[in-house]
Amino acid sequence: MSKESKIVSNPEFNAAAAGVMEGCRVMAGFSDEPGQTTRLYLTPAVAQAHSYLRQRMEQLGMRVWVDAVGNLHGLYAAETTDAPRLLIASHIDTVPNSGGYDGVLGVMMGIAMVELLGGKKLPFAIEVIAFPEEEGVRFSLPFLGSRALVGTLQPELLQRRDAKGVTVADAIRNFGLNPDEIPAAKFSGDVLGYFEIHIEQGPVLESLDMRLGVVEAIVGQTRLEVKFRGKANHAGTTPMNLRQDALTGAAEWITTVEQSARRDASMVATVGRIETYPNVGNVVPSDVTCSLDIRHAEDAVRQQTVFALMRSAEILAARRGLQFAARTLLDQPAVPMHPTLTAKLADAAAAANVPLHRMTSGAGHDAMIVAPHMPTAMLFLRSPGGVSHHPEETVLAEDVTAALQVAMQFLQQLQS
Amino acid sequence: MSKESKIVSNPEFNAAAAGVMEGCRVMAGFSDEPGQTTRLYLTPAVAQAHSYLRQRMEQLGMRVWVDAVGNLHGLYAAETTDAPRLLIASHIDTVPNSGGYDGVLGVMMGIAMVELLGGKKLPFAIEVIAFPEEEGVRFSLPFLGSRALVGTLQPELLQRRDAKGVTVADAIRNFGLNPDEIPAAKFSGDVLGYFEIHIEQGPVLESLDMRLGVVEAIVGQTRLEVKFRGKANHAGTTPMNLRQDALTGAAEWITTVEQSARRDASMVATVGRIETYPNVGNVVPSDVTCSLDIRHAEDAVRQQTVFALMRSAEILAARRGLQFAARTLLDQPAVPMHPTLTAKLADAAAAANVPLHRMTSGAGHDAMIVAPHMPTAMLFLRSPGGVSHHPEETVLAEDVTAALQVAMQFLQQLQS
Repeated sequence: MSKESKIVSNPEFNAAAAGVMEGCRVMAGFSDEPGQTTRLYLTPAVAQAHSYLRQRMEQLGMRVWVDAVGNLHGLYAAETTDAPRLLIASHIDTVPNSGGYDGVLGVMMGIAMVELLGGKKLPFAIEVIAFPEEEGVRFSLPFLGSRALVGTLQPELLQRRDAKGVTVADAIRNFGLNPDEIPAAKFSGDVLGYFEIHIEQGPVLESLDMRLGVVEAIVGQTRLEVKFRGKANHAGTTPMNLRQDALTGAAEWITTVEQSARRDASMVATVGRIETYPNVGNVVPSDVTCSLDIRHAEDAVRQQTVFALMRSAEILAARRGLQFAARTLLDQPAVPMHPTLTAKLADAAAAANVPLHRMTSGAGHDAMIVAPHMPTAMLFLRSPGGVSHHPEETVLAEDVTAALQVAMQFLQQLQS
Repeated sequence: MSKESKIVSNPEFNAAAAGVMEGCRVMAGFSDEPGQTTRLYLTPAVAQAHSYLRQRMEQLGMRVWVDAVGNLHGLYAAETTDAPRLLIASHIDTVPNSGGYDGVLGVMMGIAMVELLGGKKLPFAIEVIAFPEEEGVRFSLPFLGSRALVGTLQPELLQRRDAKGVTVADAIRNFGLNPDEIPAAKFSGDVLGYFEIHIEQGPVLESLDMRLGVVEAIVGQTRLEVKFRGKANHAGTTPMNLRQDALTGAAEWITTVEQSARRDASMVATVGRIETYPNVGNVVPSDVTCSLDIRHAEDAVRQQTVFALMRSAEILAARRGLQFAARTLLDQPAVPMHPTLTAKLADAAAAANVPLHRMTSGAGHDAMIVAPHMPTAMLFLRSPGGVSHHPEETVLAEDVTAALQVAMQFLQQLQS
């Protein structure tokens, strides 16, 4: 028996889900490159996307504005003018040759939720926000939109240049905005919380036959560069016991990394990059440089594992007559979601009779930037095939229906 | 106590060894590139080397000629005109930025042996040969000289071009020789055997504290290209148990290769080259291509090991959900040296009271080309640090003295 509940057929939710899918398809057409979906920070494709979102929002009676970093806001007023706000947000930029759902789905879901209210006012306002930069493609600066929202976008970053030499500040000015006004983009009112809906971008929900997941934490991450140095030697004349082979040392260590991560279902560890020198078939390799990317929801577990793997590398290097060195490139703590808000999201799923998988997010999201500043919750939709950052990325309309049912129940929970 | 015998101090042998060292140093100065030793097939540096060798040989009363492939021959006549010949040969080309002893040492040793005869005639003639191409650098065609000597240089190879588009035939003509006469370069007389003295180019003798080695066989060699294919996935969102990681599969296999070779002291197996795709730190690798170079003196052992390693790769690939494919690039049988001639060389060492290590050669040599056509024996001198194909390549004068003592005893043994 499938763990999936049968989604109650409800014409209103089905229509809203169809509208979300249609919105994502329309958005995918706004591209910097013809024939694919590539939408970088503040390009003309973003202006087209803004124009479309503004139209969709204004049709629902929302007040729309764009702040100085390029975040598009649509405000659906509350019963009272002094009511707090629920922020529903995600990003509308993409990686090059992307799919149509990463980020955009969360914005279209926010609009669909307002649509499903059918004009009914709540004791809190809903502010849907479309961030124009999360992926970090144009300036190697991810999360520009959400950083501006929480006031952590350092002014010096505005001098970063893209591949054509254009600074962030100039890109903002060219879009008709004033970078000097970015401090005013910081959210300062009374906030109920931040809610982000996103595709999983991984295979976990599909492998469990689940439509939806609630994120309990965004994993912490360590990135290291690891080097083994031995001695180059003739592959024919150097007996095995007289070698200092950097590659067999690295290979042993890579298998240790994998075994170590496999002992903890919440851990992922990846050696994605390896470079060998001299990299010739008949020479014993003297040098190997490789990457290690290791992620876990608990910082202590991650740090202990990194320590243990460095120790393993030292020991095997010493045994093999190799030198070993490691350099930490990134050491980012895990970000927990807000327990109460997350519990309400779980209650909403129970009320909607939609099973919900409690999980960690292995990828970073705007919610990670926002969470230290306000109560934050995050809902994942299953990614068919686990595919993302690819034209074949998609989402099932039935899963969107289920997510809308949970999201509307969530609005109910927030009133109690 | 060292296994080395104390070399009996003999002014005559010491002087001859000094002459060999001096000859190698002079030859190292004949270079295609100023400031280093680089001497490719039939360049002007080879003409300089020929001129020097001719002078050294003619001083000893040897008759000197250059055949159509560029082999320089120096004939020291026997007691009688119808006597057989002992060929003493090695090569005088080098790899780029080489040391001064690889190949050249064997030619200078042949000249020194004639010198040590002090004009005494033997019941056989000695023909010292300097091959102008063994490394295969200029035309990616190794062993041109020795192939011509035994008549296995196929005419179509003369149309191969170097990096500047010059054919082998043109290089021969530019050197003042006639490529049409190559068939006449084939040795056709009565031959006693072929004797090559060479540096080991490996660390075995040094690790055993031995000066000299006698080669029993030149190893057979298999070269393969091996591919693992899995699936690229996000390093953060893909749990370990849902991965098809080509690199962890390759790493496991590389450790298997190493373990397998370590079980047999006569085996060497090397993964020298590895290429990973997409080779990015935060993406699980989908593809790995790597080399395997495996050598052993016994062809059956080598072939069984290759088979077992391919089977290991298939099994681990199936377990990991990877595709595996392998392509054989080279499958070269082992070449045994001549038992009787080799036994005489061992007897000579015993007579000279110089310990001799019986070993296989892990690298190819001209002796490998010649051995199927005439009785062949090979003597190795210790390579300090195991260093070769490098400016720091050297040989110890004391080891040269020991080698000359053995070589002169070898001439004695050949008369009995």
